[in-house]
Amino acid sequence: MNAVEQLREALGDIVDTDPTALEAARSDRSGHAAPGTPVAIVHALTVQHVQQVCRIATATCTPLVLRGAGTGLAGGANAGAGEIVLSTARMTAVHEISADDLLAVVEPGVLNADLNDMLAPHGLWWAPDPASRSISTVGGNIATGAGGLLCAKYGVVRDAVLGVDLVLADGRLLRLGHRSVKGVTGLDLTSLVIGSEGILGVIVGATLKLRRLVEGTTCTIAATFEGVRAAAGASAAVTAAGIQPAIMELMDAASLAAVAALLDLPVPREGTAQLTIQTDGPAAAVEADAVAAVLQAHGGTVELTHDREEGEQLLTIRRSMHPAMAALGTTLIEDVSVPRSAMPAMFDEIARIERAYGLTIPTVAHAGDGDLHPNFIFPDPEPPAHVWAAADELFRAAIALGGTLTGEHGIGTLKSRWLAEELGRDQWEIQQQIARVFDPLGILNPGKVFTEHA
Amino acid sequence: MNAVEQLREALGDIVDTDPTALEAARSDRSGHAAPGTPVAIVHALTVQHVQQVCRIATATCTPLVLRGAGTGLAGGANAGAGEIVLSTARMTAVHEISADDLLAVVEPGVLNADLNDMLAPHGLWWAPDPASRSISTVGGNIATGAGGLLCAKYGVVRDAVLGVDLVLADGRLLRLGHRSVKGVTGLDLTSLVIGSEGILGVIVGATLKLRRLVEGTTCTIAATFEGVRAAAGASAAVTAAGIQPAIMELMDAASLAAVAALLDLPVPREGTAQLTIQTDGPAAAVEADAVAAVLQAHGGTVELTHDREEGEQLLTIRRSMHPAMAALGTTLIEDVSVPRSAMPAMFDEIARIERAYGLTIPTVAHAGDGDLHPNFIFPDPEPPAHVWAAADELFRAAIALGGTLTGEHGIGTLKSRWLAEELGRDQWEIQQQIARVFDPLGILNPGKVFTEHA
Repeated sequence: MNAVEQLREALGDIVDTDPTALEAARSDRSGHAAPGTPVAIVHALTVQHVQQVCRIATATCTPLVLRGAGTGLAGGANAGAGEIVLSTARMTAVHEISADDLLAVVEPGVLNADLNDMLAPHGLWWAPDPASRSISTVGGNIATGAGGLLCAKYGVVRDAVLGVDLVLADGRLLRLGHRSVKGVTGLDLTSLVIGSEGILGVIVGATLKLRRLVEGTTCTIAATFEGVRAAAGASAAVTAAGIQPAIMELMDAASLAAVAALLDLPVPREGTAQLTIQTDGPAAAVEADAVAAVLQAHGGTVELTHDREEGEQLLTIRRSMHPAMAALGTTLIEDVSVPRSAMPAMFDEIARIERAYGLTIPTVAHAGDGDLHPNFIFPDPEPPAHVWAAADELFRAAIALGGTLTGEHGIGTLKSRWLAEELGRDQWEIQQQIARVFDPLGILNPGKVFTEHA
Repeated sequence: MNAVEQLREALGDIVDTDPTALEAARSDRSGHAAPGTPVAIVHALTVQHVQQVCRIATATCTPLVLRGAGTGLAGGANAGAGEIVLSTARMTAVHEISADDLLAVVEPGVLNADLNDMLAPHGLWWAPDPASRSISTVGGNIATGAGGLLCAKYGVVRDAVLGVDLVLADGRLLRLGHRSVKGVTGLDLTSLVIGSEGILGVIVGATLKLRRLVEGTTCTIAATFEGVRAAAGASAAVTAAGIQPAIMELMDAASLAAVAALLDLPVPREGTAQLTIQTDGPAAAVEADAVAAVLQAHGGTVELTHDREEGEQLLTIRRSMHPAMAALGTTLIEDVSVPRSAMPAMFDEIARIERAYGLTIPTVAHAGDGDLHPNFIFPDPEPPAHVWAAADELFRAAIALGGTLTGEHGIGTLKSRWLAEELGRDQWEIQQQIARVFDPLGILNPGKVFTEHA
């Protein structure tokens, strides 16, 4: 029997070969698709299902592509010819919520926003808030080491996971990490799994570190500036003033114009960039006034509200970036992250690359932590050569500024060609050897992360 | 030429074979010593020195023991017969302090407190604050994944390191991590090195994540209780009330009595336990009043001060625990960590073990995060059999309560016998295979962490 026949015999109906489902599993939210079509999708409901799939895949040496909600932006969950998709999207149980220990024990398929809806009545929340939070799974958030808007103040996924249950390629189950706040027993494999993009094992459970809901007002400030450099300078001044906003989002002129078009808002004056800032906690109002003063001193036209709903409306503009880009064509969303102080220089580099390649590269940034999302837009399904060339210059510029290829989206298939350059050859090889310790046959997400391009 | 002769030819005076220095390198602050005496200590001053030592050690297959200030509490830096000590204690440079990017680039030998003295004029600090902070190095803090008093609010070392420069056993230099706040490029080897206790490589540099100094008052509350269970219950009630103290330290009756004897303070009433709590930040005073009310409602006799110096005096009692124990005999300091809610149950287990073995086990706890330090005291240099037996029960009790062997001290030599039990055999083997990727010959800190006892 081939692998799919074995899976069907062992697992029955959860083995799915519906052509529409197989076609959907070829791509993620990056808009890119794997060549060819996977042979089956297994919708695991239990840890035992996952273990059985892994055992059969190992026995038959069949490549497995791990998948949650498929909302990734780097092609890491795209499945192609000859591959079997192992989906944990239907493992959605929340086994435990402990306010005393500030932790939750969950299955990987629960959506980030659904989990937070369940935590709220307990006065709790899980801080990581990728823009995809209403559609992305906690398991996917962990596998990609997701970030989001609130990270500068409240941390990324790496800061919010105590333990992970991991099924290895051969079907063995490892329980990594702790339920306690502190723990240094042996090597920190929990951290190693966070952001490992499915090449070490299948995340089948997680113990999450929670926070108490922040009490008090949330204040929101929106400010417009003549140009992105002025906005970047103003955001740097906010940080330099020692204020720690919960959210500090920057949109350049092209982004703002695209969103205005999508939402049918008045056309912004040409070149207008925007900062949207939220403060929270006991000092929210005082901090908001201080932020407003800094922004005005840096030439910003400032709007401030203490009303949570009005604040959400101001943030809607930022949150509409992804659909606004999608409305313009196929998008390649980049994710370079630089030290905060290098952000104005990075915007200069983007402007230089726009001129050099005759491109417009709408860019938004998590200005509090120096993570930028430049968007390349093109008409065809795959990026044309000059877009790849421009992206190549973009990455090199970020690395030269002390930054990195990817702040929160991961390497997947779309950035693997630059990985060795950032890590250095020695580290790149050691990382692959570590992956082989977990997955000696290399059947988990083959061709992802470490593929080398010519 | 043997290894020491080769080292001397290559490195000259920094190769030290003074008998007093060699004797001192046999032990750390755990009070335990390696069998036999190391053959030499190399006091590296540069990365190149470290690389040369590693190359010679690899070529001659000589075991290397990595050492900073030797303040560890698990025997992880103890060097014995046939071993060469590679010390980075003299690599103390601070290369960069950036207030804009909230980071510092340092060499591993700088003392934690010295670094913070240098950061303070910039309005910055590095949050990890092990009790040893005035005598322990940043490199050692990273190698052990150190914790401290402020961790529940401000995090452990794992939360405060952006990147690490690591020299491998064969002398190659890897630059791990980022200068940016976010970064998910490949596997997170920085996190893997944190707490790896010298078995993966030599930490020769680090990029540290800083915080701005917390402004405003610091309030300190000391409260006494009739018995440790009442104190533990009161600390749990503080957490349950949603208050996040900066520090929350618990001392049981035996600890309090020992410190009172050491400091010549009035003898506390028999059975009296103590909580010492600090609040800080903009809401410090409001939170301190709330804490005091909770403690009083739980039967505490409360003292509160808004004066920073008076607060430090109240904390002196807690900070004198280590010398108070040392004054009583040889100490085996344990470091079990349990979920906060399990702390009262863990104190019950300690009381049970005290009765079963006819021992007094003075115990202090970082009550905000559930990390307990039970102290075994005995007259001889090495623990007698019944102390090991009692420690064995203690560890099993912690694990049964969902806890771990070590919250912040590490495995070293003293806890390696229990490691496989906590990790499970599969994970224990995988961790060793990962270590072999970094150090194929197994020359770095051999016999530490993974040794198995009968």
